[in-house]
Amino acid sequence: MTTQDPSLSRDGRKLECIFHPSSIALVGITSDPNNWMGQGFLKGLLEFGYGGKIYPINPKAGQILGLKAYPGVRDVPGPVDHVISLIPAPLTPQLIEDCGSKGVKVVHLFTAGFGETGDEEGKRLEAELLAVARRVGVRLIGPNCMGLHYYKSRITFGMGIPDEAKESGNISFLSQSGANAGNLLQMGSLRGLRFNKVASYGNAIDLNESDFLEHFTVDPDTEIIAAYVEGVKEGPRFRRALMKAAAIKPVIVLKGGRTVAGAGAASSHTGALAGNEEIWNALLKQAGAIRVYSMDELSDLLVAFCHLPPLRGRNVGVIGSGGGASVEAADICESAGLSVPPLPPEIRSQLREFTPVAGTSVRNPIDTTSMFLPQDISRTLELVASHTEVNSIIFHMELGLGIIQGPARAIVEMGREVIIETAKRLHKPLVVVLAYGGSSQGISVFTETKDRYIKSGLAVFPSIERAALAVSRFISYHETRKSA
Amino acid sequence: MTTQDPSLSRDGRKLECIFHPSSIALVGITSDPNNWMGQGFLKGLLEFGYGGKIYPINPKAGQILGLKAYPGVRDVPGPVDHVISLIPAPLTPQLIEDCGSKGVKVVHLFTAGFGETGDEEGKRLEAELLAVARRVGVRLIGPNCMGLHYYKSRITFGMGIPDEAKESGNISFLSQSGANAGNLLQMGSLRGLRFNKVASYGNAIDLNESDFLEHFTVDPDTEIIAAYVEGVKEGPRFRRALMKAAAIKPVIVLKGGRTVAGAGAASSHTGALAGNEEIWNALLKQAGAIRVYSMDELSDLLVAFCHLPPLRGRNVGVIGSGGGASVEAADICESAGLSVPPLPPEIRSQLREFTPVAGTSVRNPIDTTSMFLPQDISRTLELVASHTEVNSIIFHMELGLGIIQGPARAIVEMGREVIIETAKRLHKPLVVVLAYGGSSQGISVFTETKDRYIKSGLAVFPSIERAALAVSRFISYHETRKSA
Repeated sequence: MTTQDPSLSRDGRKLECIFHPSSIALVGITSDPNNWMGQGFLKGLLEFGYGGKIYPINPKAGQILGLKAYPGVRDVPGPVDHVISLIPAPLTPQLIEDCGSKGVKVVHLFTAGFGETGDEEGKRLEAELLAVARRVGVRLIGPNCMGLHYYKSRITFGMGIPDEAKESGNISFLSQSGANAGNLLQMGSLRGLRFNKVASYGNAIDLNESDFLEHFTVDPDTEIIAAYVEGVKEGPRFRRALMKAAAIKPVIVLKGGRTVAGAGAASSHTGALAGNEEIWNALLKQAGAIRVYSMDELSDLLVAFCHLPPLRGRNVGVIGSGGGASVEAADICESAGLSVPPLPPEIRSQLREFTPVAGTSVRNPIDTTSMFLPQDISRTLELVASHTEVNSIIFHMELGLGIIQGPARAIVEMGREVIIETAKRLHKPLVVVLAYGGSSQGISVFTETKDRYIKSGLAVFPSIERAALAVSRFISYHETRKSA
Repeated sequence: MTTQDPSLSRDGRKLECIFHPSSIALVGITSDPNNWMGQGFLKGLLEFGYGGKIYPINPKAGQILGLKAYPGVRDVPGPVDHVISLIPAPLTPQLIEDCGSKGVKVVHLFTAGFGETGDEEGKRLEAELLAVARRVGVRLIGPNCMGLHYYKSRITFGMGIPDEAKESGNISFLSQSGANAGNLLQMGSLRGLRFNKVASYGNAIDLNESDFLEHFTVDPDTEIIAAYVEGVKEGPRFRRALMKAAAIKPVIVLKGGRTVAGAGAASSHTGALAGNEEIWNALLKQAGAIRVYSMDELSDLLVAFCHLPPLRGRNVGVIGSGGGASVEAADICESAGLSVPPLPPEIRSQLREFTPVAGTSVRNPIDTTSMFLPQDISRTLELVASHTEVNSIIFHMELGLGIIQGPARAIVEMGREVIIETAKRLHKPLVVVLAYGGSSQGISVFTETKDRYIKSGLAVFPSIERAALAVSRFISYHETRKSA
């Protein structure tokens, strides 16, 4: 791909090559160590352990973070595969010319200040940039974006990301927003999600949403596709790509700019034309893609897909502590489209053998107010799971100030290990809801507890609302698959 | 009130006396220091600094937590005003007899195992209990509840509650659920809410929701009324009480048991008959009360009422970081019924004087990606507030892993102080959304930041969804007031 390959955009397999750069030049990287953002991409690559050649490009040359810098791309002695542009927008057409001469395949433009500004000059510059790129045979990612993250190549836009985000996984994410790409990578990884490829593509003047969607569809390591899209460059192509993708993999889509104000913001953000809400709804429904309405919902659905087996039945056993919390959990589950069926008398009486009568309920929701003994937690989970009509179990806990106190903390920790162990032999999927209602002092106990649940592979949600909604949509997806 | 006073239930003012017990006996309190729950009520009273006499009642007498214990209520040398019952349900009728002889005014039954069990014996016991109480002239709170919390009398059911929950305030909360009462007191106080009276009343066989609602309506220190209700004992009376309360004070109601499963759970919890959803909707609407659907929403609305001035206009200025996050914020605000109007050109050009063109937006939502200087934050807030059509401002931030790193942490801390200072002179209400997306290591920086915002008196929410919904409902309340 040293010259423009028009088939690249039409065959998802061919896009693989852009995720395997053998050398990267960072053009416009600052030599100022106090410029935290300006050195971020380089720091990210070094932290991630990128194995190819890295060339900092800076007019002053010298050394940057221990690497020899060059005044221009054309001054680099060896070949340059991939360029990250950090220079101001007006300088980018000349950069693309230079990249063409140097045989660069792809330029990722972190550089912003093009069509998204809304002014004529930005739009003109964008057109010029694309014309030069087409002429000299360079493909563009962006402008106004964070570019690529891929475990196998150790390329990333993430700086200071947690170790979890450096592991490989089965999710690929195409995101018109760079911050959303970074946030899902970082926050999602802390929720137990693992990523294969992440592509932030911004204004999408060359490679666009359809390119990445087509690639993720045929990419064998991508099992789940997530997308944040503000606007679509090629409507009919995107429609075909979405139909094809959703036919073989779960595709979860957050459409940014669904309201008048949101569409205006999308236009300022990536110059996107947001399109009509009804058309989007019809398209996503027809394709069998899952629509979500916030990044939190996107990450919740991914947690369900990654940590739960396919679920078709809507009956949940709801176990938790507190009468009011149990009533609320039942109300929220049913409002979200789940069902909380009463347990049959024989299971209730078995629960009653060890559950005190006063201040508890064994009907479903199960209110375990007085249930402190590990064997009781385990037995309760098993008995609820034994009901053939229960398809999954939601265990909800709210940890409060008490957890920093000795006995309560020990109970939380003991209960946690029992729940994790029991979940392994349950034969019914377990969803854990873990909320925190205490003060700053107790928060580290809470986060340790949450991390332990997540690391054990359980689906963990921060509220019963979010758990119920994600589980219900997850079931809807499998119901649609079944009937299709 | 040494004998049954039938007018107590019909005149809200008279209920004041039950919140001022001059002495309290805890019947059935354990002498086992390892029984964390069993000594909780006593620990709570001691921590809170209750000034009246406290009498632990335990068959073994001796000393409990340094206080002389007595074998029975009738063995206490001085008068006993208020009794907290921790003994098993079957023993409670005799206790009430004894309390009658001793001249006890009120018995709060933490004891559960009555009508909520659903069995005949529980119901029979409940009827017996009430008959004895009526005969001997003792009023009952509960059974199956946590009882009362009141700052002025230093009475509480809270053990190990944060210091913030021990301060006095303008909210009174009637809650059929004890855990909900405790959670709002604890979690709400950490969000900056301050409480006057909290009453957890459980099965409500004697004093019920109408009694507490009528009392809070006339109580001069109660400015805002919150209610968690599963069922209503006296329909017409409750209707009148609600109309009267909501006519003069904001009343925020969470109705537990709005679905079939939730109603079943409510019946197991407090024996409540949940009633018809349509009737509830009509009643709350007619009264002008605000309906919420979860404890989180209840606490969000209270934050709005306590930390925002009355708001009638729906136009918000939305300021935050990240293009995708800004698009999402605009979408969520408009979906929640708020409006995010574009700023006029003159304000946009003033914002542009210091906001770099690339990667930002000054349209509204304002994307401040590159805005790091304190004076820029301050100026942005002032300029957005200067637009006459903007009624309030939402500033949203997501703190991530970066905040534990030196420069980013300093920026967060500096920005925080500037925002707090600027808010004081803005003349437009400021809502702060503070989310966390980092790992356990950074969480304490996040909670410190959040606590600082809360302590400065700002309305702080954990997500843009929750902020937008609460602000929109808060505005609806004031719109209704205005038109009424």
